[in-house]
Amino acid sequence: MTHLTPHDLTMVLLALAVLLGVARLLGEVARWLGQPSVLGEITAGILLGPTVLGRVAPELKAALFPPEGPVAIALEAFFALAVVLFLLVAGLEVDLSVAFRQGKTALGVGGGGMLLPFILGFAVAWFAPGLLMDVPEDRKLVFALFFATALCISALPVVVKILKDLNLIKTEVGVVVISSAIVNDLLGWMIFALVLGMMGAAKGSFDLTTVVILTLLFVGFILTVGRWLVHRLLPVLQARLSWPAGVLGFTLSVALVCAAFTEWIGIHAIFGAFLFGVALGDSRHLRQRTRATLDHFISFTFAPLFFASIGLSVDFIGNFDLVPVVVVFVLACFGKIVGCAIGGMLGGLSKRESWAVGCAKNARGAMEIILGLLALQYGLIDERLFVALVIMALLTSMISGALVQRVLAIRKSVQLAEYMSPARMIWDLPARDRRGAIDQLVEIACKRDAKLDEEAVCRAAWRRELVMPTGMENQIAIPHARIEGLARPVIAVGRSRDGIDFDAIDGRRARLIFLLLTAKDKPEEQLEILSGISALSRNQKNIDRLIEAESPTEFVALLNSEAGVTERDH
Amino acid sequence: MTHLTPHDLTMVLLALAVLLGVARLLGEVARWLGQPSVLGEITAGILLGPTVLGRVAPELKAALFPPEGPVAIALEAFFALAVVLFLLVAGLEVDLSVAFRQGKTALGVGGGGMLLPFILGFAVAWFAPGLLMDVPEDRKLVFALFFATALCISALPVVVKILKDLNLIKTEVGVVVISSAIVNDLLGWMIFALVLGMMGAAKGSFDLTTVVILTLLFVGFILTVGRWLVHRLLPVLQARLSWPAGVLGFTLSVALVCAAFTEWIGIHAIFGAFLFGVALGDSRHLRQRTRATLDHFISFTFAPLFFASIGLSVDFIGNFDLVPVVVVFVLACFGKIVGCAIGGMLGGLSKRESWAVGCAKNARGAMEIILGLLALQYGLIDERLFVALVIMALLTSMISGALVQRVLAIRKSVQLAEYMSPARMIWDLPARDRRGAIDQLVEIACKRDAKLDEEAVCRAAWRRELVMPTGMENQIAIPHARIEGLARPVIAVGRSRDGIDFDAIDGRRARLIFLLLTAKDKPEEQLEILSGISALSRNQKNIDRLIEAESPTEFVALLNSEAGVTERDH
Repeated sequence: MTHLTPHDLTMVLLALAVLLGVARLLGEVARWLGQPSVLGEITAGILLGPTVLGRVAPELKAALFPPEGPVAIALEAFFALAVVLFLLVAGLEVDLSVAFRQGKTALGVGGGGMLLPFILGFAVAWFAPGLLMDVPEDRKLVFALFFATALCISALPVVVKILKDLNLIKTEVGVVVISSAIVNDLLGWMIFALVLGMMGAAKGSFDLTTVVILTLLFVGFILTVGRWLVHRLLPVLQARLSWPAGVLGFTLSVALVCAAFTEWIGIHAIFGAFLFGVALGDSRHLRQRTRATLDHFISFTFAPLFFASIGLSVDFIGNFDLVPVVVVFVLACFGKIVGCAIGGMLGGLSKRESWAVGCAKNARGAMEIILGLLALQYGLIDERLFVALVIMALLTSMISGALVQRVLAIRKSVQLAEYMSPARMIWDLPARDRRGAIDQLVEIACKRDAKLDEEAVCRAAWRRELVMPTGMENQIAIPHARIEGLARPVIAVGRSRDGIDFDAIDGRRARLIFLLLTAKDKPEEQLEILSGISALSRNQKNIDRLIEAESPTEFVALLNSEAGVTERDH
Repeated sequence: MTHLTPHDLTMVLLALAVLLGVARLLGEVARWLGQPSVLGEITAGILLGPTVLGRVAPELKAALFPPEGPVAIALEAFFALAVVLFLLVAGLEVDLSVAFRQGKTALGVGGGGMLLPFILGFAVAWFAPGLLMDVPEDRKLVFALFFATALCISALPVVVKILKDLNLIKTEVGVVVISSAIVNDLLGWMIFALVLGMMGAAKGSFDLTTVVILTLLFVGFILTVGRWLVHRLLPVLQARLSWPAGVLGFTLSVALVCAAFTEWIGIHAIFGAFLFGVALGDSRHLRQRTRATLDHFISFTFAPLFFASIGLSVDFIGNFDLVPVVVVFVLACFGKIVGCAIGGMLGGLSKRESWAVGCAKNARGAMEIILGLLALQYGLIDERLFVALVIMALLTSMISGALVQRVLAIRKSVQLAEYMSPARMIWDLPARDRRGAIDQLVEIACKRDAKLDEEAVCRAAWRRELVMPTGMENQIAIPHARIEGLARPVIAVGRSRDGIDFDAIDGRRARLIFLLLTAKDKPEEQLEILSGISALSRNQKNIDRLIEAESPTEFVALLNSEAGVTERDH
């Protein structure tokens, strides 16, 4: 049978649905735990693959994800397309001009952060490969090169995410981290392409010299002529073609051509897509909305599918081996953090900043896993070492944010919705005046927290209110108080049908009242949340939608999605 | 070989790239010619398939789109997923509450528009099947049912597009068309599902009664409990999960489960996706931006891929047969237009409106083709009849807009960018005063049109300017004149570095000057364009971006994409 029967199609659709559903669900769980969602997505694959489902219900696993046949081929093709598209989006994040502007520091930190882990990795793989796996004698060089590269790569998307969470993205540390990570990754991927070329050459499609020459020509072309051409072409496409259909079609078909080309050379499809993404992302003619459409659809559907698919092919328990896991993890962390820190100090950063740079760049995340998977597929590494690489990638991504936070002694940026809960909202506030509103909101704010003394909180909020009224523009009021020993901020929300006079600047009555309680010793937390809410109050349209929300849940949903996002991102 | 080799992967990527690229390109060409883009997309497949490429370069065609093997399976799976996702998005357009509100009229027009073509189709297929194809005796009933259904279905997405283009979407005619098309299509698809069930039952997965019961249960469940559940769940998902990742993941995985379920029943995967789309699209909790992300990505990448794939499987020249083509076309048009018109008149519409409704609903577009393709794949019709159905679908879609326009004697709505061209822009207007600016813009406006008398145009524009200055808010001025015998509006644009005093209300100097020339006998055209430009002038951010555009091409690109869109859509 070389065609898909209705039964095959049913299974393909079901497999994709289950994989995507579970991956997204566990991705959310990971996020709740403050971890990158890729962690949850990979766990989904581990649950559905040979590691768990294969042990518990082998027939079900074989029915959903058969090892061969038309369904297997169709799924394999989807996963390949998914990783190609994911790398396209990852490439969009790479801003070459940032790296150019940073010049020396980027080269220093990028070089330092590569050199040490590369040397360490190469040395261990060359002199003590037994610690990692059994390496055939004729592959020693390729293996050592691969392992060295694997240790020195970062994961730009994860690093960017961490810096964004910590509000560091526009600081000097942030720019150094990103620019050096770009240098680092471009070099790393080139070396890895070479390694794959060596493997491919061994398999005999092209000889190594041809592979290297074609790769260099391709990289050179895309990052110079290609980049310029894209920048020139985009306005013309957007002026002449329908929008955004024209740009999307152009982007995807050219990305696929580039991917096909690099796959044909023998260095895997993802390189072509990634490099084209870099060239495209650099053009400021690419509209924010086109970026968002690509990013949302690919990052939230194709990427989870791909990461979950990783767990499908490998048994993570059967192939768990403590020695390589520990060796890989220690080597990776030590080499990267120390290497980057030395590079940073040489490049003129302070000691503390240098260590922060090292910790930030230590996150391996998605990229490491893709690299490991390719090596596994090419037969360069065995499943034990692959599992060790995946664990290292996940662990480094998990600790990276916390380490940077500790080294720089900073906090995460505030997300309003985090401190709100439908249980602390009164959707039809009975109060008619300020005093009543504050009393009622304090009551609901304190109800779920035994440590809060309702009366004291009321007094504090009212005292503050008397100093200066807290009515803002556009029907919003933010009574607030700082409370001794409060572990985390509490926001209680009340909606008033007729409005309550909070003595606002624009004379309007407040219809949404946010009561904000923060810890006495963290004045900056209060400021940040206050400015978050008052930013919200500047957009009448959003306020109207929030006021008209049907229920507290819908209110939080609005804040979490458009109403909140529009305010914060634009 | 049951896995994808690197060579297979290269070919899959290349095939998708070529198909998507050519489909989008020809889709744009179709749009330039004022036709629906699906026409161009199908033509792309015809060019790349057996009809053209297969004749000119059979080896190339076989290499790109092999008839069997892993590449063929992978592509087949992609196309199946593409049509499933396309139907999901088509379902989002279906707003059941509109149909409910219209109640009787919708039922009347929907019923009339179905009954006549259904009876005609059934009669011809039953009594003179030879006109269409050779029908085996034991399949006569299924065939007649299928053909009758094929004639009475409309294409909601195409119909909506036509109504939008003609500014009819919110008028009574528009609402009647849409609501009756919803009734029509839901019924049509149900009958078609039954036909497929009869075919599937013949093949023996379930017996017909089971198929019918399961289908009815599924439809009933999705459109009642499912719809309610989705509406309840959406706010919770958006409040608790990250956004828009949570909603997108939820949408796609549930859509795929529904698709898998209907495929398993034996009535094809698209029904499940379509019905879930209907249930989801009805909830006003689905954010506009989530809709847009789904719609853009799917309509502009998966849909073109699917429509192009149709041409790959059939030889459109070899299977062209005039008799079925003419019979199908005449029956389809006559039945639908007359049936809807009678229904409309009975439902209380005026004669003219009733005919307009018939002409609008006559567009078959995408839906007809999908229906035909399924019938072809199930072996219910032969390739000749399939070609006739495709041609009917394309022709009816092509003439529908023009017919409605003629019947109602209305014009298409204005798209600013249509009347602008980089050749009629002065990017650094040397003029220092109003008179000079008008002279220079008139010169460039008249240069490309020999029929325009420069001097007369100048006089007219200046006379108008003296009556009342044309400076608007936010650095925009719109000098204008009505010219005898002008075939279509002309807009010339000048950007002034220092600004020119056009006596604006807000006292600021104009930096963007739009000279607008329209025909003397079409005052409404002038009004519409003037209000389009002045709507633009209300958003300072967009104006700034337009002023800072690097070149006239970039200016048109901006107008075509974000700057223009934000103004018109929100």
